[in-house]
Order: sequence, then structure tokens, then C-alpha cells
Amino acid sequence: MKKLIAEFIGTLWLVLGGCGSAVLAAGFPELGIGFLGVALAFGLTVLTMAYAIGHISGCHLNPAVSIGLWAGGRFEGKDLLPYIIAQVLGGLCGAAILYAIATGKAGVELGGFASNGYGEASPGGYSMGSALITEIVMTYFFLIVILGATHGKAPAGFGGIAIGLALVLIHLISIPVTNTSVNPARSTSQAIFAGGIFLKQLWLFWVAPVLGAFLAGITYKFLSSSE
Amino acid sequence: MKKLIAEFIGTLWLVLGGCGSAVLAAGFPELGIGFLGVALAFGLTVLTMAYAIGHISGCHLNPAVSIGLWAGGRFEGKDLLPYIIAQVLGGLCGAAILYAIATGKAGVELGGFASNGYGEASPGGYSMGSALITEIVMTYFFLIVILGATHGKAPAGFGGIAIGLALVLIHLISIPVTNTSVNPARSTSQAIFAGGIFLKQLWLFWVAPVLGAFLAGITYKFLSSSE
Amino acid sequence: MKKLIAEFIGTLWLVLGGCGSAVLAAGFPELGIGFLGVALAFGLTVLTMAYAIGHISGCHLNPAVSIGLWAGGRFEGKDLLPYIIAQVLGGLCGAAILYAIATGKAGVELGGFASNGYGEASPGGYSMGSALITEIVMTYFFLIVILGATHGKAPAGFGGIAIGLALVLIHLISIPVTNTSVNPARSTSQAIFAGGIFLKQLWLFWVAPVLGAFLAGITYKFLSSSE
Amino acid sequence: MKKLIAEFIGTLWLVLGGCGSAVLAAGFPELGIGFLGVALAFGLTVLTMAYAIGHISGCHLNPAVSIGLWAGGRFEGKDLLPYIIAQVLGGLCGAAILYAIATGKAGVELGGFASNGYGEASPGGYSMGSALITEIVMTYFFLIVILGATHGKAPAGFGGIAIGLALVLIHLISIPVTNTSVNPARSTSQAIFAGGIFLKQLWLFWVAPVLGAFLAGITYKFLSSSE
Repeated sequence: MKKLIAEFIGTLWLVLGGCGSAVLAAGFPELGIGFLGVALAFGLTVLTMAYAIGHISGCHLNPAVSIGLWAGGRFEGKDLLPYIIAQVLGGLCGAAILYAIATGKAGVELGGFASNGYGEASPGGYSMGSALITEIVMTYFFLIVILGATHGKAPAGFGGIAIGLALVLIHLISIPVTNTSVNPARSTSQAIFAGGIFLKQLWLFWVAPVLGAFLAGITYKFLSSSE
Repeated sequence: MKKLIAEFIGTLWLVLGGCGSAVLAAGFPELGIGFLGVALAFGLTVLTMAYAIGHISGCHLNPAVSIGLWAGGRFEGKDLLPYIIAQVLGGLCGAAILYAIATGKAGVELGGFASNGYGEASPGGYSMGSALITEIVMTYFFLIVILGATHGKAPAGFGGIAIGLALVLIHLISIPVTNTSVNPARSTSQAIFAGGIFLKQLWLFWVAPVLGAFLAGITYKFLSSSE
Repeated sequence: MKKLIAEFIGTLWLVLGGCGSAVLAAGFPELGIGFLGVALAFGLTVLTMAYAIGHISGCHLNPAVSIGLWAGGRFEGKDLLPYIIAQVLGGLCGAAILYAIATGKAGVELGGFASNGYGEASPGGYSMGSALITEIVMTYFFLIVILGATHGKAPAGFGGIAIGLALVLIHLISIPVTNTSVNPARSTSQAIFAGGIFLKQLWLFWVAPVLGAFLAGITYKFLSSSE
Repeated sequence: MKKLIAEFIGTLWLVLGGCGSAVLAAGFPELGIGFLGVALAFGLTVLTMAYAIGHISGCHLNPAVSIGLWAGGRFEGKDLLPYIIAQVLGGLCGAAILYAIATGKAGVELGGFASNGYGEASPGGYSMGSALITEIVMTYFFLIVILGATHGKAPAGFGGIAIGLALVLIHLISIPVTNTSVNPARSTSQAIFAGGIFLKQLWLFWVAPVLGAFLAGITYKFLSSSE
């Protein structure tokens, strides 16, 4: 139960911090943090939580991460569903807090509320094909870093830094394409608040990250076998 | 006594570095560091001091941190008041040095002197309600990271990185709302120099961070119990 | 064989991440990540892979790195060619994936596709002489950091951080001059897609990095001898 | 002798990397790295060299650091002069390489060549008084971090990160005031190339950093005594 509370708190922080920086600070006139600041914020939610709750729940904060770890033989299948439910609920709670903060401003327009999307809902107007490739490949490499940096042969303690900064990097590349998901819980929470086209496109941000994570789990299991 | 001198020096650095970057460098024409640079500066004051004086005083630099650590059972109640006094005095001294530097320029206007505020004193015009939620929740998560990353089961030595970068992240999210406090000592030093509305609103930046920190102390005590 | 697959995957990530951030996100209107974000992205590809696959293949991801390590007495000559082939193929595969993503947008113009160049192909219009000095010196220092930070007397585990951030630094300095190579595999993959002048200038981005790396290998062997 | 070569190489890198990013990349149209990128570059020169040559020479790269370490009882007086000479020569060599690269562009104007200055030579027009306070205080805190993070009670291995990021922070605050020195070797190399007012003002960037470093040495010796 404490593990699930930790996953709930951590995913809340991921959505509040990552999407919060995007909604509140990215486009602030002249002094705004831009995509670079948002990329940093997303990654730092994971880096900070890795050290805060990694020793409690493993700090997945992401259904694709849980599934990739399971595919890689590092996480038990029976824990998958409870973890995913805690993550989605945490994300929703983070989005709700962000909604309460963001609407405390006269004349605010939430727009996409940092939702993920493709086609006309892509920040840079990228197609569904580009979005599919991007989300599969980015999640694949996210899991390669997670599986590798937490492997017994990797230097102990540095995993949280490598994994958090991997998420920074992934956002530096792919915000223009899909607003970057690689995390179905993060996509779900924002789509529910934004509705419309974002809810209609939500399927891609479950299918692609899960597929990429699964493939990475298999790859890394092979790479690290019998060595 | 050496602990208190360390807290004084560290909080001086936090205010001079964090607020200094905001006052001197954030809005520099064309080359200015923006909110992203200010966020980085605030976090790096804590990260650098964590390694410099963490082994002397624990490097709180913040009354809310001291109170949160006490609520979490990691800091003795009898040390609370001296620590808080040293922190507030250090912050004031940092603000005084910054004032001396900043006024050595013809025609300078200090404006809010990087003070915290809400409503018309909020950088982005956010309401008192938004400010309250923001400061409570941000301080809550700051303490969750502090309590977790310095826990005996977390990887040793990495706490300073996780905690410093947590403060970067908090600023990336919330500068537009309240100019980000999560630290009553930092708020007090700037409000005393800026006066007016900032002094009148100072209460919120004691009440909200302390409340958030207290709740985090309780939460983490539960999360880490009997494991 | 697993080592070569790891080098392939890692170099794919370096090109997809570093050049991907440049092509997709650097110049995004108003919110783009600029050269600072691209510099960060390149470095983080190496930092993240250092922890993910460093314990498998050593994580060179770069023919100049393999040659510099060989010159410094840290890598066997017989492994040079297979490593370099795996790196070049990985880079090409990364460029192909990036091409597929980037062209999924109406009216896209790929321009130089983040290729390296000098003279009229230099981002800032720097001469061939400037480019030669830059690439030799930057690769020299890259290898000094790599050889030093992975030396037995350096603090264990921190090598990936120092090396990744060295690549960030190198890009912060030299993107305006050559778009920064210090890596013949990265230059080759982009030049093949961009063609024309970039392909004609590709020789420099093999000669200069390899020369700089070789000199660094000799230097560090001397610096660390008999101590 | 190897120690002096290491200090020479390291200070060359500090000047080439820090001042190089300022001269070549800070003001690049639209995509330039600004003061934030320059701050990062300066700090990363020290962070990367700390891991590369820290185990050879201690990686001072700065006469004020050597003097502060001596004042704090951590460095022998007889080594001061050779270290300082190696640092100044390394800085000059770094500036010369940068000059060769930067002038390989048609119509280039070097301006201050990233020199330090006050009054009319201050980037933001700050007075000599502001510059004196800034350089004394910034160097003071730089040495507090250096002395603290390399103390026997601080977590082993993290010193290079804390010290490098302290230099990032110092630049985030004070580039607008003096273009940030805290390092007489770095100031000397640039002033010799820029000449004129920068050479006339060079005295301040020896006096203030050395004074600040000396005071920090004394402070930290007291703080860490008999504990």
C-alpha cells in the first residue's frame, strides 16, 4: 500500500511539475522558460522523485515504465495493474491541482492544457505517422536508459540522474512533434481536462509508449543476458 | 554556534544568489537569463551549500525546511528557533549586499526587488487562492524530496543534487504565480527592502510554506515507517 | 557482438537526440530551445548512454573516442574497426529515423539537416582554418576529459556525468563555427542525408577529430604515467 | 611538473570554453545561448576538469583558488607561485586559440573579447564599488563551496559537481556587473588581448578575488575547526 501511495504522489508531482511549467511558465512574456525549461521540469520531476521514493516503490510514475520493466524481467506482473491505477489517479490529481492554480487568473485560456496530440493537435503540425514513430522510439530509449542505469553492473546511485536527464533529453527532441508523452498517465490526465480532439487522440499515447517500452524490455534482456 | 554561522552564511548565499540573479540578470536586454536562469540560480545556491556546509549544520537555509524536518522527526524542536533566527538574519544580510550592488548603477529601479506576492503583486497576476495552493503544494513536495533523498535507504551523497534540483523545478513551475517563495526567510528579506504591498502580503509566505512543510513531514514519517 | 549492438544503439541515440533536437526544436517559433538546448541534448545522449550501456561496450559512440582511447592505451586496436562500423551504422539509422519524423510535416525544409560544415556551410560563416582548429582542439579536450574521468584515480561512477557535460560544453562553444562535430559518425550520417556541400566537406570532420583525439591520447598517457 | 602541465591545460580549457562561448555563441542571432549559456559553459569547464585532472593537480585553474586553499590550510605556500604562473600561461594560450578561431570570420569585431570591467566597461554599467563588492563576495562564496565540498566530511566524489555548479551560479548572478571574473588568470588573458580600458581595470580582478578567497580560507578554517 505504501508503494502505491508513493507512486500516486510521484506521478502527481510529474504531472503538476512538468505540465505545470508548460501551462504557467513556458510562454510568459519575455522571461518565459520555453520548451527548454519545460523539458528540464519534466526530467527533474523524475530525478527528484527517484531519490525521494525510489527506495519505496521503485519510482516508475508511468504505466509504460512499469510495463517495460515487467517485459525486461524486473517487475512482477501481478503488481502491474495496481501500479498503473495509482499512476493514473496521481496524474489526475496533479492535473486538478494545476487546474485550480491556473484558473486563479483573470481571463486565462487553458488551450490544450499541455495535452499530447498529433496532426492539428501537434505543436508543430506533425502527422500521426511522425507521432507514432516518435512516441515508440522515445519510450524505447527511455526504457533502455532505465533498464541499463539501474542494472547491477551500472554505477550504484547514479540511476536517478541518468533517468531524469533522459526525460529532459526526450522532451528537448520531441515537444514540437507530440508535446511529448512517453507516459500514458500524463497524457490521460491532461486529455481529460482538455477534452475534444485531445481525448480522441489519447489512444496513441497509450499504444505507442507501451509498445516502445515492451520492445526495450526485450532488447535489454538480451543485451544483459549471460554476461 | 558553528551550525548557526553556517546557516547564516548559507541563507545569505541563497538570497544573494537567487534574488541576485533575478534582480541583476533576468531581464538583461537580449542576453538575459529569464525565469529559467533564475530557477537554476535558486536551486544551485542550495545544491552548492548542501555539499559545503551540509556536514556542519544540515544546510536547511529555510525555516520551512527546519519545521518540516522537525515534523518528520529528523530535527530537534529545541534547535528550531535559533536556526530560524540565523536564517532570517542571513537572508537580510544577503538582501543588503544585493541592494548595495544593484544600486551602484545610474538610474536603477529596484521594483519589487524579487519579492514574493499575489494578486497585483503576482508576476502573472494570480489570485491569493492560487498563491496559497501553490506555496503549500510546492513546499510540500520540496520537503518530500528533502526527507526522502536524505533517508537512510536513499543512495548516499546524492541528496544535495536531488534537493537543489527540486528547488530549480519548483521555480520553473511557480515563478509566474508568486515569484516562488517556499522559504519564509527569503520572502522576509526581500519584503523588508521592497516594503509596501510586499510587506503586507508577507504573512502568506510564512503560513503557506510552513503548513506545506508540516504536512510533508507527517506524510513522509508515515511512508517510511516500519519498512 | 553485444558490445557492437550496444554501440549501434548508443550512436543511433546520439544522432537522433542531438541532431533531432536541432532539426525539430531549436528554431521553433518563440519557444524554441536554441543552441543551448541543442548543446544540452547532445551531451545528454552521451550521459544517459554512459550509464545505460557503459558497462556493456564502454559507450564510445564515436570513432574519434575509440581512436583516442586506443592511443591512450585503453582500448585494443583489433576492436577499432568493428566499433567504428557499428557507430557509423548506428548514426545512419538515427538519421533515417529523424528523417522519417521530420518529413511528416507539411512544407518542411530540412536545410542542412544539422550537418557540420565550414565556410559558407558554417552556421556563423567561419573559415576552414577556424573549423580545423576548433574540431582538433574540442576533440582534444573531449578526450582529455574522457581519459581523465575514467582513470582509476578519478572518483568512481562520475565519469558519465563529466563526459556528457563535456559534450554539452563543447557544443556551447562551437556550434556557431562548425555546428560542432567532434564525432565523425555523427557528421557522416547527416552529410549523407544532406548531400552537396556537406558531403564535400565531410573529410574535415574525420581528419580533425581523429587528430585531436590521437594527440589527447598521447598527452594523457604522459600525464598519468608513473604516478 | 605534471601538476603544472595539468593546471596549464585546465586553465586553457577554462578560458577557451568560458570566454569562447561568450565570444562565439552568446549573441548569435535568434539561437544564441545568452548569459545563461555562458554561465553554464564557465562552470562546466571546471566541472569537467575536476574529474579529468583533479587527481593530478587538484584542479585549481585559478590563482584566487590556490590562494584561498593556502589560506585555509589545504595547499602549501611553496607551490603557490608555480601554480599561478602555469594558470596565467594556460589562460593566455586559451585566449590565443580563441583569437585564432574568432578572427576566422569576415568582418568580425571582437569588442571586449569577454574581458572583465566596471563603470563604462561593465556590461550593465555598474560602478567600481559594485564591482568590488561583487568580486569579493562571489569569490568568497566560491571558496566556501570549494573548501566545504572537498572537506573530509563532505560526500566523496561530489566536489567537482558542487564546485563547477557554483561557478555556473556565480556567473548567473554577476555577468551583468563585471562580466564575472572571480579568477585573475581568466581576467588577465582577456585584458591582454582586449587592451585599453580593460587592461587599466585589470588590477581590480586580481585584488578583489584574492581578498575574497583569503577571507573564505580563514572563515572555513574556523568553521571546520575542532569538529
